[in-house]
Amino acid sequence: METYRMPTVVIMGRDCVIKSGGIFKKTGRKAAVVTGKTSGRLSGALDDVIRAMKDNDIGYMVIDNVDNNPGLDNVRETADIARKAGVDHIVGIGGGSALDSAKTAAVLCTNDITPIELYDGNIVNDPLPILAVPTTAGTGSEVTPYAILTVKEKGTKASYGDDRIFPKYAFLDYKYTGSMDRDVTVDTAADSFSHAFEGYISNRTTRMSRLFALESMKIFIDSFAALRDFSMTEKVREDLLYASMLSGTVISQTGTTALHAMGYALTYNMGIPHGRANGLLFSAYIDELDKENKEMLRELSVKLNIGDISVLSDVFRVLFPERIMIESDKIRKFAEDTLKQKSMKYTPAKLDSERIAGIFRSIVK
Amino acid sequence: METYRMPTVVIMGRDCVIKSGGIFKKTGRKAAVVTGKTSGRLSGALDDVIRAMKDNDIGYMVIDNVDNNPGLDNVRETADIARKAGVDHIVGIGGGSALDSAKTAAVLCTNDITPIELYDGNIVNDPLPILAVPTTAGTGSEVTPYAILTVKEKGTKASYGDDRIFPKYAFLDYKYTGSMDRDVTVDTAADSFSHAFEGYISNRTTRMSRLFALESMKIFIDSFAALRDFSMTEKVREDLLYASMLSGTVISQTGTTALHAMGYALTYNMGIPHGRANGLLFSAYIDELDKENKEMLRELSVKLNIGDISVLSDVFRVLFPERIMIESDKIRKFAEDTLKQKSMKYTPAKLDSERIAGIFRSIVK
Repeated sequence: METYRMPTVVIMGRDCVIKSGGIFKKTGRKAAVVTGKTSGRLSGALDDVIRAMKDNDIGYMVIDNVDNNPGLDNVRETADIARKAGVDHIVGIGGGSALDSAKTAAVLCTNDITPIELYDGNIVNDPLPILAVPTTAGTGSEVTPYAILTVKEKGTKASYGDDRIFPKYAFLDYKYTGSMDRDVTVDTAADSFSHAFEGYISNRTTRMSRLFALESMKIFIDSFAALRDFSMTEKVREDLLYASMLSGTVISQTGTTALHAMGYALTYNMGIPHGRANGLLFSAYIDELDKENKEMLRELSVKLNIGDISVLSDVFRVLFPERIMIESDKIRKFAEDTLKQKSMKYTPAKLDSERIAGIFRSIVK
Repeated sequence: METYRMPTVVIMGRDCVIKSGGIFKKTGRKAAVVTGKTSGRLSGALDDVIRAMKDNDIGYMVIDNVDNNPGLDNVRETADIARKAGVDHIVGIGGGSALDSAKTAAVLCTNDITPIELYDGNIVNDPLPILAVPTTAGTGSEVTPYAILTVKEKGTKASYGDDRIFPKYAFLDYKYTGSMDRDVTVDTAADSFSHAFEGYISNRTTRMSRLFALESMKIFIDSFAALRDFSMTEKVREDLLYASMLSGTVISQTGTTALHAMGYALTYNMGIPHGRANGLLFSAYIDELDKENKEMLRELSVKLNIGDISVLSDVFRVLFPERIMIESDKIRKFAEDTLKQKSMKYTPAKLDSERIAGIFRSIVK
């Protein structure tokens, strides 16, 4: 039995925020606009949202305190400001950090719990309505029921999920992603691709998730040269933002797998951006999967029209040539932390501590 | 700017109704189970729904009065019974007639209006929650915000739409479609294909609708031999039911085009089943479209891997070889009625009365 659900209304196209006054008007009377210190402004998205608010007589406050990889204290602060101001909906602008903070603020505004209790699975009251405006093409958070926070108590980044934090509306305007530099563009594209790939090969894969995942992976492959050379056209940016939304829809059905679990260890312990962490580990991960899933990966390579699945490894080696210093006792700890993540059990391979350590070692200088 | 929304939760797989007790339990306490006189029983779907209701201590009443191509009096009667009984949700079981009656009952139970007022676009109160169990693989109504009723006042079948009549849940169990005979199987498959095709070529086409439409059309083409020979396996039935849901999602974004408008005239005036009406007209419709959309249809044939778009015309000529008697003054009237349908303006061709009459004449004995 398979289930598919994705209740977010997705609005795509240039200037879609400005053109959607009717939606803003019917969502609420006073918004908390949650964003980071820079990306909302640099991308132009914050200006567009403020203009839409003003045009439609909606009260708003900007809360621009979101940290990269926000921790529980940071999201609590965001939520406290919004709650005290008595807002009735939340607009998130940015990458995954900002969107997941916005989702979390929406929950904490209506539920008198501490952030760590988000992980207990008992959110009682409906969160405030959430509107999501991504400024990167990677997170997919605009169409997922998940938020990922840095949890010191768990020693890693960890996600919680609730179908009521699917954003009500997602606004996909590729002009915002034009503010990303080469690294952020490539890192976030790798994040999006890993969502699609992991959802496709996951033990929880579904017919619908594969439909979305294949489309997203094809777009990434078609965009490879533009990413490698950072020769981004409007069309490529639009394609990648669309693909990122498709990939988010994929993981809304399937969750992620060991690659994300490993990536969290690199991000939490070494500060490597989330997408890059996945990108660095991808080639070794796919090689490891291929040992137990030859037929599935061969079929996938046919559907992607790439001849052989090793082409994907090559693509990631070219996009992420960097090698980093990790001490060997750290690698053992990362492997142990990885094994604790719940996404491990959706991985179609028996990855033990030694095999996971091997994947980490593949990126060591 | 493009919008995508499809809020229905889709549950697919054998025995999915029986296995979804948790969903029934949280949807309401007393259901009206709306179905026709035969298909709910023959398919086994009614038995499964009743078992799920009993297993989960949900009160229910069966209203099995739905006519084929239900008219306004018929849906009003269904709704009156449900309203008087004080039900709090509606379960529709059947093809388009039953599902659209269920949707309409859900609206009329909470809105004190006459059925003709459904077409005024001012449904005030939220309809009751709707659960949909299709027993054919064609209508797609389980994932659309539309209901199509026979409206004597308009002299045709006509659809109304409201996003609040998207079913909350759709249960897709291919074992129910095994009760269809050859004609109903082929007719409904043609309906599903026409939804995908019309959504793909529509002036309102979107990137998301094309993704779903291509997948659905590919499945239909892969199932062609099984349909032609009526050699239906479980896999083919499962594929076609999945494709029908994809096609429904397509028209939820795009609506239909002139083919459906023409089909309604045949169904209303000559009693030809909806899917067969579309199937009969399809070959001439595509030939007519090809005069103004050579490039689009050539591209489509490449994506469908069928060499040339005329292959589709051939497929429909093989599935629908029948020719019928229509008097020539009737054809003129059908063409005039067709031109009044709102879907005409989404058709990517300047079809005037004469060209539409020509399409009708193509199926005359």
